[in-house]
Amino acid sequence: PDRPPGEDGGSGTGVGDETAEFGQLVSVAQGPRLGIGMDSCVIPLRHGGLSLVQTTDFFYPLVEDPYMMGRIACANVLSDLYAMGITECDNMLMLLSISQKMNEKERDQVMPLMMKGFRDAAEEAGTSVTGGQTVINPWIIVGGVASVVCQPNDFIMPDSAIPGDVLVLTKPLGTQVAVNAHQWLDIPEKWNKIKLVISREEVEQAYQEAMLNMATLNRTAAALMHKFNAHAATDVTGFGIIGHARNLAQQQKNNVAFVIHNLPIISKMAAISKAGGNLFGLLQGTSSETSGGLLICLPREQAARFCAEMKSSRAGDGQQAWIIGIVEKGNRCARIIDKPRIIEVPYRGSVVSAQEGSNNNASPPEVQLT
Amino acid sequence: PDRPPGEDGGSGTGVGDETAEFGQLVSVAQGPRLGIGMDSCVIPLRHGGLSLVQTTDFFYPLVEDPYMMGRIACANVLSDLYAMGITECDNMLMLLSISQKMNEKERDQVMPLMMKGFRDAAEEAGTSVTGGQTVINPWIIVGGVASVVCQPNDFIMPDSAIPGDVLVLTKPLGTQVAVNAHQWLDIPEKWNKIKLVISREEVEQAYQEAMLNMATLNRTAAALMHKFNAHAATDVTGFGIIGHARNLAQQQKNNVAFVIHNLPIISKMAAISKAGGNLFGLLQGTSSETSGGLLICLPREQAARFCAEMKSSRAGDGQQAWIIGIVEKGNRCARIIDKPRIIEVPYRGSVVSAQEGSNNNASPPEVQLT
Repeated sequence: PDRPPGEDGGSGTGVGDETAEFGQLVSVAQGPRLGIGMDSCVIPLRHGGLSLVQTTDFFYPLVEDPYMMGRIACANVLSDLYAMGITECDNMLMLLSISQKMNEKERDQVMPLMMKGFRDAAEEAGTSVTGGQTVINPWIIVGGVASVVCQPNDFIMPDSAIPGDVLVLTKPLGTQVAVNAHQWLDIPEKWNKIKLVISREEVEQAYQEAMLNMATLNRTAAALMHKFNAHAATDVTGFGIIGHARNLAQQQKNNVAFVIHNLPIISKMAAISKAGGNLFGLLQGTSSETSGGLLICLPREQAARFCAEMKSSRAGDGQQAWIIGIVEKGNRCARIIDKPRIIEVPYRGSVVSAQEGSNNNASPPEVQLT
Repeated sequence: PDRPPGEDGGSGTGVGDETAEFGQLVSVAQGPRLGIGMDSCVIPLRHGGLSLVQTTDFFYPLVEDPYMMGRIACANVLSDLYAMGITECDNMLMLLSISQKMNEKERDQVMPLMMKGFRDAAEEAGTSVTGGQTVINPWIIVGGVASVVCQPNDFIMPDSAIPGDVLVLTKPLGTQVAVNAHQWLDIPEKWNKIKLVISREEVEQAYQEAMLNMATLNRTAAALMHKFNAHAATDVTGFGIIGHARNLAQQQKNNVAFVIHNLPIISKMAAISKAGGNLFGLLQGTSSETSGGLLICLPREQAARFCAEMKSSRAGDGQQAWIIGIVEKGNRCARIIDKPRIIEVPYRGSVVSAQEGSNNNASPPEVQLT
């Protein structure tokens, strides 16, 4: 019952989260140190070359299913580690608030499910939740902390992209639009704006698809980053694909620019965005995502195999990945080309179309990018 | 402007925080593991006998000075490490929310001060804040995460009290009463209940004293725990002295009981509690504390020297510590004797009386306990 008001219910972004306010990449004698500018912080330890890598994220529920919300919150926290190519997590803390507006029965129904979702996702990630805190608050809060002690080879500093790399994205965009469209089913003046381009059933399917995607761990992608020699990565969350691409570009050691040609988007979400007058800036890449995919800079010759292995990986459950752009020489900036190709990513509920694979669904061959 | 309603504004306790719901002490092959039952969790790592010790705490402001509030929040998080005898912290994350009811000017005045207080306390503790998140919320939230990677000798598992130990407390009780009394200065019907036993000036002094105590790091006490061979410790927060004493007793390997004879309380707070009809249960030990002292089980022959060194320690700034009880044979429970001795701890603002040292202020000799 408690969700902050406003259209950006789909955004899990905190003010100041992952901003470059304090963050910078500095090298110290003991090892690399990464401040607040990127997804996780990296703290050199006093013990034999080890580093503490940790991250925190908490936000307000954006889906109605408490169990899925718990899974999404956990996947979202872990994603900051996965963006560094880290596949293990030593411990998670859970951060929760119970809404003071919930009665006892609601609490007893909702909170255990949310906690179970969080714990189940942690277990799927091979870690566990030991510690945390719960407070009473007007709104429900769910989030956590993920920490791991790493050897130098366990993580990939997100600063080594070179011209000629390609950009790969491991989940489709459009979670914010899908979540909001689902809320608009019950708000006639909102629904009237989009009902010409989508049916109620499709909204329901898109919402389910968004939930599935948000609850999916980026762990397979993190493991494949090592196998295919990734040069840098980040995860796509509150600032949208272009915001996170820019942030990643700014962290690079080399003079590079990221150029995005393709936008894989949950089917019909681009149409909704257009019908609503470019809602959330989805096609400009500014629409918030929650627990989005990894955006990875990969050597060109490795990227297609990365995508193929993502799809075939047992652990990946046939997750898709798309080559969405290129790394050029440039001024540590990022942009989307004028008329990006929209890749309509079908709902997995609609098994037939997913298996048939439309042109729009196939990973584009690299040659299309240049 | 944003503080949760209700009389227990002085409580920083989260629901489920430090409860024994999931927590238990279990030994695993790799090293000791400590779950949610106690102050910090201890996670054995894959690297050469090292453990990750971490804790989180966040709550709502309870004092009006944003800078002091930041310091208190930081001291409160670190206190969970100090309770394990840990003196170092590798990293802190800051957890914040900005109240949506604050205007831009208020935000720009309040939040930087609160963050500065938090950072300054972290610096005083020899650590730093790298990472965190800020969200918008109806209420202001402030808190953090403290993490450290330890060798086995760096921490003291809180489970080895033996009959004959004594109990030492390193900060006076009464922070909740002091904070609330200060709020009541502006609420006539509340003030009328207590004005016969305390003056407005004394309330102001008690409030300042409570703030100073809450902002004081328990780091000196943590270091002295090693020097004087402490057997177990916890920090006193939301469940009051008796709640945390019980929780600590339940964690013990030996059949022990904790018996509390003396209650060191910020001067006049006991009188207020009585005048208000046993407000908050201060004299029963149930009144919440925020960032309270450590409750430490020490060998009897070491305790007086522990207290003396606390007072003389340069780092300790002349912090006091009191022997407040004994460890007997028993059933892992804790109690306060029928008529505990109230030790009136003077305000440090009132330098003269503090130096003169009343009988009530002196650390009681051990013989008084038995």
